[in-house]
Amino acid sequence: MNFEIKHKDAMGRTGILTTPHGMIKTPALMPVIHPGKQTLDVKKFGAEVVITNAYIMYKNDDLRAKVLEEGVHKLINFPGPIVTDSGSFQLSLYGDIDVNNKEIIEFQELIGTDIGTSLDIPTPPFVKRERAEKELEITIERAKEAFEINGDMMMNSVVQGSTFHDLRSKCAETIGAMEFDVYPIGAVVPLMESYRYTELVDVVMASVKKLPDSQPRHLMGAGHPMVFALAVAMGCDLFDSAAYILYAQDDRFMMPRGTFKLANLVEMPCSCSVCSTHTPEDLRAMNKNDRMILIAQHNLNISFAEIRKIRQSIVDGSLMELVEQRCRVHPYLLDALRNLKKYTAIIEEYDPASKNSAFFYSGPESLGRSEIQRHLSRINRIPPKRNLLLLPRSRKPYSKNLHDEFGKFYLKHVKGDSLSDPQDLWDDLQLAVVDVPFAVIPLEIDEVYPLAQNEAPIITDEDAKKFVREEMEKYMERFDNVIISAKILDRFNMYTIELDSGNETSKHPIRVYSLEEYELDAVKIDVEDREKISSIADYQFGMGAGKALFPGDVKIVKSRKTGKIRHIYEGETLIATLRATDSVFVLDREGARRLHSNMEYPKNRVVVNTDADPFAREGKSIFAKFVIDCDINIRSNEEVLIVNEKDELIAFGKSILCGHEIMDFNTGQAVKTRKGGI
Amino acid sequence: MNFEIKHKDAMGRTGILTTPHGMIKTPALMPVIHPGKQTLDVKKFGAEVVITNAYIMYKNDDLRAKVLEEGVHKLINFPGPIVTDSGSFQLSLYGDIDVNNKEIIEFQELIGTDIGTSLDIPTPPFVKRERAEKELEITIERAKEAFEINGDMMMNSVVQGSTFHDLRSKCAETIGAMEFDVYPIGAVVPLMESYRYTELVDVVMASVKKLPDSQPRHLMGAGHPMVFALAVAMGCDLFDSAAYILYAQDDRFMMPRGTFKLANLVEMPCSCSVCSTHTPEDLRAMNKNDRMILIAQHNLNISFAEIRKIRQSIVDGSLMELVEQRCRVHPYLLDALRNLKKYTAIIEEYDPASKNSAFFYSGPESLGRSEIQRHLSRINRIPPKRNLLLLPRSRKPYSKNLHDEFGKFYLKHVKGDSLSDPQDLWDDLQLAVVDVPFAVIPLEIDEVYPLAQNEAPIITDEDAKKFVREEMEKYMERFDNVIISAKILDRFNMYTIELDSGNETSKHPIRVYSLEEYELDAVKIDVEDREKISSIADYQFGMGAGKALFPGDVKIVKSRKTGKIRHIYEGETLIATLRATDSVFVLDREGARRLHSNMEYPKNRVVVNTDADPFAREGKSIFAKFVIDCDINIRSNEEVLIVNEKDELIAFGKSILCGHEIMDFNTGQAVKTRKGGI
Repeated sequence: MNFEIKHKDAMGRTGILTTPHGMIKTPALMPVIHPGKQTLDVKKFGAEVVITNAYIMYKNDDLRAKVLEEGVHKLINFPGPIVTDSGSFQLSLYGDIDVNNKEIIEFQELIGTDIGTSLDIPTPPFVKRERAEKELEITIERAKEAFEINGDMMMNSVVQGSTFHDLRSKCAETIGAMEFDVYPIGAVVPLMESYRYTELVDVVMASVKKLPDSQPRHLMGAGHPMVFALAVAMGCDLFDSAAYILYAQDDRFMMPRGTFKLANLVEMPCSCSVCSTHTPEDLRAMNKNDRMILIAQHNLNISFAEIRKIRQSIVDGSLMELVEQRCRVHPYLLDALRNLKKYTAIIEEYDPASKNSAFFYSGPESLGRSEIQRHLSRINRIPPKRNLLLLPRSRKPYSKNLHDEFGKFYLKHVKGDSLSDPQDLWDDLQLAVVDVPFAVIPLEIDEVYPLAQNEAPIITDEDAKKFVREEMEKYMERFDNVIISAKILDRFNMYTIELDSGNETSKHPIRVYSLEEYELDAVKIDVEDREKISSIADYQFGMGAGKALFPGDVKIVKSRKTGKIRHIYEGETLIATLRATDSVFVLDREGARRLHSNMEYPKNRVVVNTDADPFAREGKSIFAKFVIDCDINIRSNEEVLIVNEKDELIAFGKSILCGHEIMDFNTGQAVKTRKGGI
Repeated sequence: MNFEIKHKDAMGRTGILTTPHGMIKTPALMPVIHPGKQTLDVKKFGAEVVITNAYIMYKNDDLRAKVLEEGVHKLINFPGPIVTDSGSFQLSLYGDIDVNNKEIIEFQELIGTDIGTSLDIPTPPFVKRERAEKELEITIERAKEAFEINGDMMMNSVVQGSTFHDLRSKCAETIGAMEFDVYPIGAVVPLMESYRYTELVDVVMASVKKLPDSQPRHLMGAGHPMVFALAVAMGCDLFDSAAYILYAQDDRFMMPRGTFKLANLVEMPCSCSVCSTHTPEDLRAMNKNDRMILIAQHNLNISFAEIRKIRQSIVDGSLMELVEQRCRVHPYLLDALRNLKKYTAIIEEYDPASKNSAFFYSGPESLGRSEIQRHLSRINRIPPKRNLLLLPRSRKPYSKNLHDEFGKFYLKHVKGDSLSDPQDLWDDLQLAVVDVPFAVIPLEIDEVYPLAQNEAPIITDEDAKKFVREEMEKYMERFDNVIISAKILDRFNMYTIELDSGNETSKHPIRVYSLEEYELDAVKIDVEDREKISSIADYQFGMGAGKALFPGDVKIVKSRKTGKIRHIYEGETLIATLRATDSVFVLDREGARRLHSNMEYPKNRVVVNTDADPFAREGKSIFAKFVIDCDINIRSNEEVLIVNEKDELIAFGKSILCGHEIMDFNTGQAVKTRKGGI
């Protein structure tokens, strides 16, 4: 009876949910089965869990007698986990039903449901606030009652609150504190039916950000593959689909690209066995029921394929690429994706620090990705210099491909007066490349993931230009003098107009630069190894980490094959290794010790209790339940220090979860220990 | 032995290619079959045509004897159309082969090939110009020789010219004039292998724009479903794929989303029968050959499914939506799509005037679509007024949803001095809405397709803002005074800074407006029916059409159900009907007569020869071969006049093809006649 995360990407996760009737791989789609009539054997299509309606069984005398006698698994002939809904759906349709919360919960327990549901009130979107508040009160009361009544059955508790974000958050926080097993997000079907995906994003994010990380979330009534990827990226784990059969009854094919009516088809829409062995004419010539069965099969095939693609993309670290593709299929989904940008700060906390795949820019929406926000925040960890030289893009990694950059440059005095001695510019000089989408890339860290592992089109859109201009300006403020390649001014439309002083320019969308033309000879593109390792350490672990790890003379060992930095020693002692795939440091014992003694508690730390202390020292991995504290800013896939309650360093390793999750979870691994015995 | 177009979208078309061994639905994928070894029965996956290599058969003594005896259809056990390649591929691999042009053409004819190929020189991309020119000369010479040698066999003639656009165009023009049956575009595999899709777009467009419209084009070596949609939108009809088997040998799954290596898979990538009945572990545990067969099956399933989706999207009129989705899967494909924008003027000539589906905005790239360019050109057909009132967006159609628009407005004097009498603004006033992506929509035509049949996100990207600002400015130049809603200035970042006169602003990316604040009371959103029908006619048929069709008093009959304008009469005579689905006029006899006598030759006309004259008068549809002249500016799906050689109006109807195609085709319908007997 637990939930364990296996892989993460954005706020999405793949995991395992354990129930009395077996394990469920998440994200999962739960086909809705009518308890009285079953048309398809959904197991064959990949269903590991199904959902059925307890209220229908409760109300129908025959079904009720039968299910009480033989149990729900036999009744609907499904041996795996079964979720039951409580009648809330009927409540939302008919306004009133004749069963109370206690009765329906006890009934679900009696029939052997794996995951039951209390009788929440599904308040529709856009109602008056008063109604939403009143109904939410009842929903929360019934959740509390359910918590008390319920025996061993796993339980859903549904987040309600209409389209009031604070009510959704409040509900999520309240029921989230009660340790239910699954948290559905309810009453969103009207939003999806009217393509109000922008509002859906707000409702889901308002809920998810207050729900515990350690339990799966179910986006109730979401059965169209168009929305699965976006919902998973926001942290949803479970979907249910009656749509596969309802759409089929109406001769409609579901696709991640939208819905297609049989009447309009000249070709079958997908690669599934139904689509590759029939033509639209075949189907139109069939009797209604045979046709319905085939279309339902297609709908299941395509829906489960989409779930598989999503799981794969989480493992690959390309979930946002999939989301950005899927959200292009309808302008309202694209609007929702654009709206998601305002939640980047939250998503960033969950997004892994390193991934298996490159960052692909798919349009202005990619500028809202966590990776970019994280980078722009982390470059502030590198100590500033006095002068800055901004270089144009080249192939990546820049430091290997820029070589000598000739051409026109411009000089901008950010602070102070004109320079008396131009030679002075070359002292204390920071080299950085300006490019889409990471804006400013200090050359020391240009091989760190994803700064070298990303691609964007050369033809640059206006949002990217604006974004880069703004971020570049912010970065420039840290320096006294900035030398800018003319190519950058060209590419990013940085118009160099000399305006009379005192002219009002603040309302302009583009800051007007006052630049002096400055002809440079060949620029030496050169970063010292010593500076490189120090900057990477700062960028990775926090300001000061470079000095902490490599305070004195170090021996830098390079790969004979690639010429890349591999190991950093002091004397014969290995401090850290720079991983070839993503150019971040993997600590060795000495590195861990140095970091630990120089970075203040709780920075970079995961604190385990005394029970786990001896196991960690042996190099065993750290399970979440043994963690008593941690640096909340830890991201998953980062190098972390493992300490005991006295802040003694006992091991170090790689985080599997992020800070919030490490604290919230009681199951599964939190840190994969590299070495103990310190 | 002909090619006929059935449906069109962008430069893409669905069609039927007739060969001695049957018909091929295009766009088509032709699996490559090795003449000596066949691994899969490709018919089962949807192959209607295959391609095999004549040179391999020619060189291998056993195969040669066998194929000469029994024919190529029996040898490779494929009863349908077979295309043979000539050995050019081997030439490109090994640099030299020992067969000449004449020998290989005669051999192909002897073995019963349906479509044979001459021995062109596949010049790779990015060679020196001298080499490209020299090799192209040989290619063209051999094409000429082939044309002379060849008997009844249908023939390919390959466009070469490396990455020199003028050479590609020259080659296309030269061989295009020789009436071959299929025009492959050759030597592009190195571009695709290195993801140089931007250069691929230039090469294909340089070729296609000079090739005859009336023959299919084959993008040689394009076998990855990632590029099919883009290539079809540029006018390619045929693809060949050895990739399905080559990728399978290397454990790689092809998807429209990219290529996936079995080693990295945790889930199967699609909904096909292979993917829904196996797991990656199953495959990894198999012996290499069994696994290869299954992956090849997947590759065929997904490739043919993609071809089906493309065909469907052409019929639906949503091909560019599909292309814009597909091009998001890799930043270099996105770059190619952005590069395609420079060919909008060419694509617009082929793009149908009306489509079955709405225009969906998927990002800044959608601003390059034909529909927008066409609209912005056609609004100039509506006679200008003196004053302009620009209104913000509402739900569509605007004229039904804007109602009374209150709020702040600004007044801009485009020409002349300040206004002495503000009341003067309300005379001769054009109302127009400003919105993404069509920029300026005069209210009279706001229901004409696709001005009401489009969706864009509310959160507006910077490219759209810039585009709308620029187009709005151009439109404003036609008026003396412009009144702009403050909401427009807000949404499109039109900063209203008062600058001292004489200040240099031309280098600014944004024009600085000099506007006077002007408080308006409620604005009357009202368009007179009379103006509406006149403007629609101008917009649809050209400036002056409104006056020509509706010069005097007309009777406007509206739908009792929807209140929309339906029929326009003068007295009892029906002039034209406004079609409900796209709000364009369908002429009646009187309308056709009026248009004909007022619009100068050859405007709106398709001219048929004397043979066809009597059939057209009877209302029979017009086949392309009877057309001797036409208005080259006719788009497909437009209302056109049918005249005889003396420019006597004999019928009218709807164009199936565009002007260029009507002139070039000798097969199939050009115009679906509505009525003859004039």
